[in-house]
Amino acid sequence: MKIKIDELKHLMKSALTSKYYSPEEADLMVEVFLHAELTGKNTQGILKLLGTEPAQDIKPKYPSKVIKETNLSALIDGGGAAGPLVGQIATDKAIEIAKKNNFAIVGTNNTFSSVGAIGFYARKIATNGLIGIVAASSPRGVLHFGGIDPAYGTNPTAFGFPTNEYPIVFDMAASAITWYGLVRAKALGQKLPENVAIDKDGKLTIDPEEAMKGAILPFDRSYKGSGLAMVVELLAGPLVGASYVHDNGDWGTVFIAISPELLVGTDNFKKHASELVRKVKSGRTKDNQEIHIPGYDSELERQAILDSGEFEMEEKLINDLKAKL
Amino acid sequence: MKIKIDELKHLMKSALTSKYYSPEEADLMVEVFLHAELTGKNTQGILKLLGTEPAQDIKPKYPSKVIKETNLSALIDGGGAAGPLVGQIATDKAIEIAKKNNFAIVGTNNTFSSVGAIGFYARKIATNGLIGIVAASSPRGVLHFGGIDPAYGTNPTAFGFPTNEYPIVFDMAASAITWYGLVRAKALGQKLPENVAIDKDGKLTIDPEEAMKGAILPFDRSYKGSGLAMVVELLAGPLVGASYVHDNGDWGTVFIAISPELLVGTDNFKKHASELVRKVKSGRTKDNQEIHIPGYDSELERQAILDSGEFEMEEKLINDLKAKL
Repeated sequence: MKIKIDELKHLMKSALTSKYYSPEEADLMVEVFLHAELTGKNTQGILKLLGTEPAQDIKPKYPSKVIKETNLSALIDGGGAAGPLVGQIATDKAIEIAKKNNFAIVGTNNTFSSVGAIGFYARKIATNGLIGIVAASSPRGVLHFGGIDPAYGTNPTAFGFPTNEYPIVFDMAASAITWYGLVRAKALGQKLPENVAIDKDGKLTIDPEEAMKGAILPFDRSYKGSGLAMVVELLAGPLVGASYVHDNGDWGTVFIAISPELLVGTDNFKKHASELVRKVKSGRTKDNQEIHIPGYDSELERQAILDSGEFEMEEKLINDLKAKL
Repeated sequence: MKIKIDELKHLMKSALTSKYYSPEEADLMVEVFLHAELTGKNTQGILKLLGTEPAQDIKPKYPSKVIKETNLSALIDGGGAAGPLVGQIATDKAIEIAKKNNFAIVGTNNTFSSVGAIGFYARKIATNGLIGIVAASSPRGVLHFGGIDPAYGTNPTAFGFPTNEYPIVFDMAASAITWYGLVRAKALGQKLPENVAIDKDGKLTIDPEEAMKGAILPFDRSYKGSGLAMVVELLAGPLVGASYVHDNGDWGTVFIAISPELLVGTDNFKKHASELVRKVKSGRTKDNQEIHIPGYDSELERQAILDSGEFEMEEKLINDLKAKL
């Protein structure tokens, strides 16, 4: 069904303000969920308000607080709040610091859930003329290459770069399938794709339930993907005071903002980043389709949806959310 | 043949000082080449002093110079010198800045060649109690996912993390095969592995010569590897004033050093990084082999070779180098 974007925002805000979050906090979270829906990351959108652990039903233990701050950094204890709220606070802090001092690193720990669609935060940093790098750890699911026990989370990373047009925003998980991919296949009684997961004895499996007791393969099935998962685990675990190689701990995230002023200058960087996009897009493709630059090419589409004021959503999801109000 | 490490160093230094480089400059480069040999990256070792463009035969246009400097950064024009010399200067600069101000980003452009085994630099940063991130762009070879023309270099990245024992050092190329892999297969009249490269019409090829006219696949054959190659191209091209999406330009590299003091503190980080290693290594493997942590587990081996004072090298390579003196 088509739903007015304003109505969708209102519904999400109503759910989020029903118990523990203020209207201002809800607005910050709605922005993240809406971005996920508009960019096709719909497992990170309205679904976060449904299911067994909806964001609005989790009572924060205490308000998030900055537990350490320097001229280049902040470490934020999320107080057990939903990830997207703490992610927004951390991103705004990183932008504020980097606008003043050309670099910022902000770490968060003790959030109840993942920060959600991490491309959102990298894009927000990039729209401020800064290069954004965001990496998040999560409960373990992915094996270390050579091992058969889960070691790392699905550990996504996102990168945002300003250009003279729209930011380039690239994000990816370190795993061959997301944890939600397992949950969804199990719920729908479906099999997994081949070669994405092993069972608890280390044998490849296409049974989602066996995979949950086993481990997920790195996205490239090699030491490289597992190495990148390890790098994220170090940056978004030990470096930010969050759990690591864990089953049930909190979730950690690191937000980095770098101003091109430190090197070639912001205008110069944006000009050449735009030229890089143009050069890559001028390359040939096998089927004469256009080469897709992540974030950059979806920006016009996203803007068009926002301008239209309407969005296509599954009716069941809307009704499920309404039933919660 | 076994060669004394001191003799190997002396041979490399003699070659490097034969024309354009001072003894001090040669020492810096020898350190990089030796590290490559000792860590199995032998395409980045003594071979750099042989072949058609040996490092010692390239005349730098002028001494490298810092063309911009801030309290957190430096931009270095390499003056057309060999990459490993400029890489060493940049790394030392990054360490110096980050020891003072807890963060540094140093960019280099205008080097004649790649900086070589980039794990060396990330490791050097990590041995100073800092987190090191190094990324290097190179002449284009790797396609953007969906395209059939080469867009990006093989674009390696390296990460170094201090622990209470030895640094964790992870490095990887963004490509399914290195450029040198193509050169080597061609020289030996060998075929390539399946599914690593395409010819100029976009068809998969196992012919190294056709692959050189075509493009190399990203390491995971998907949009993720291509996206990571793009990220490196942006960081080590436009951000450092080097070429990008190029055939014959210079090589750019970015060196980042982050002190854990900005977040949890260095002692705390090292303790938990060590604990992370311990937890990952305690996981099961299918064949009961030990789980390998990159850099960390090879450190004892490297130290043992250094302590023995001797190293196994192909006799032909040693003789080829001697013939050049």
